[in-house]
Amino acid sequence: MSSHHIVRDDQEPALIIANGESCSSELLGQLLEWSPLVVVLDSAMHRVVELGIKVDVLIGDFDHGFEPESFKDTQYPLEIIHVEEQDSTDLEKAFKYLVDRGIPSANVVWATGKRMDHTITNLTSLVKFRENLKVVILDDHSKVYLLSKQFKKWYPSKTIISLIPIGKVSGIHSSNLLYSLKDDSLELGYRTGSSNSVLNDGIVSITHEEGDLLMMECND
Amino acid sequence: MSSHHIVRDDQEPALIIANGESCSSELLGQLLEWSPLVVVLDSAMHRVVELGIKVDVLIGDFDHGFEPESFKDTQYPLEIIHVEEQDSTDLEKAFKYLVDRGIPSANVVWATGKRMDHTITNLTSLVKFRENLKVVILDDHSKVYLLSKQFKKWYPSKTIISLIPIGKVSGIHSSNLLYSLKDDSLELGYRTGSSNSVLNDGIVSITHEEGDLLMMECND
Repeated sequence: MSSHHIVRDDQEPALIIANGESCSSELLGQLLEWSPLVVVLDSAMHRVVELGIKVDVLIGDFDHGFEPESFKDTQYPLEIIHVEEQDSTDLEKAFKYLVDRGIPSANVVWATGKRMDHTITNLTSLVKFRENLKVVILDDHSKVYLLSKQFKKWYPSKTIISLIPIGKVSGIHSSNLLYSLKDDSLELGYRTGSSNSVLNDGIVSITHEEGDLLMMECND
Repeated sequence: MSSHHIVRDDQEPALIIANGESCSSELLGQLLEWSPLVVVLDSAMHRVVELGIKVDVLIGDFDHGFEPESFKDTQYPLEIIHVEEQDSTDLEKAFKYLVDRGIPSANVVWATGKRMDHTITNLTSLVKFRENLKVVILDDHSKVYLLSKQFKKWYPSKTIISLIPIGKVSGIHSSNLLYSLKDDSLELGYRTGSSNSVLNDGIVSITHEEGDLLMMECND
């Protein structure tokens, strides 16, 4: 049965496997279990196939002698999307593909680690798609997503949460955080909200007026 | 002989060992060979001592039951700097310590990987010290530093270099890059200069008027 049938039926996030450092097999296994669609970026395909994973979509510019067609038989059915577009990263190409297919959300693994230019570009590329795609980037230590202007979520007491502004973010208010924010501004490099902490078991509320604010739930 | 004697004599960068992912022993060994002063952040001390490295300065807030005094004898002479200050990270405390000692430059390892909140905060914290301390952050795939307003450096043809703006950077001009910049602006998340490439063996020139621009020299 084609995975595409499943996609139309539910709203579970697609899984994008990017080309950075591999995550634990536990994390990958948990995400695969619920993902109706697995999208792999470019030459990460070699590493993914070695793990015995069935891939639905392979996206990239496929330079450096990479041959996507070589996976057609063993991964049938496999959709191959060749995008030659210098102004976007492979991850952005995958985001655009999902938006064009009407898929509302995605989890992303292997998007961090190794090259820092790729890591920082991947983590911050969420902002271009903020209206169209709900994205969570995960690795073995971190869960990263863009906050909506009005964010509420239940956390246990003492959970560490970090608020990382992409550029400047203003008009920030929080409730139930150790370092409370009241009409505050954060600015990357100058004043970030790294390593804040939840006060009491219960709802944390974070609102902001202007800018793009990343939530990072991290542990050692 | 105390390492402090050597510090006064020359201007080689101090080495800061932070608390992220360990780098290769080759990279660490190269940096140690030239570093007159080794500064370790907080509980990274356990991992550093296991590698048989002589540490000069140990800095941190030393919470979570960490006992800096336990290293006093085996690492003699060891300067222990206990800083209780919630608004700065351990890495920023180390930068401030070096500035206060009049040391002009530092290499930093183990500042990336593991938690993404720490990684992004460390990479962007250079901007606060841009006037006082020349910092290079290194890991096995990346070399990251803040560009001066007028930057010139010799590179071999086809070297990949990434220009990552911390927030917005404007008035950027380049020469000898594949994707040339002419009075251009970059903005993190929206338009970065990731994966540019050197055209010909020779000097690359990059100037900018406003903002903080990170150079990332990365490889896979």
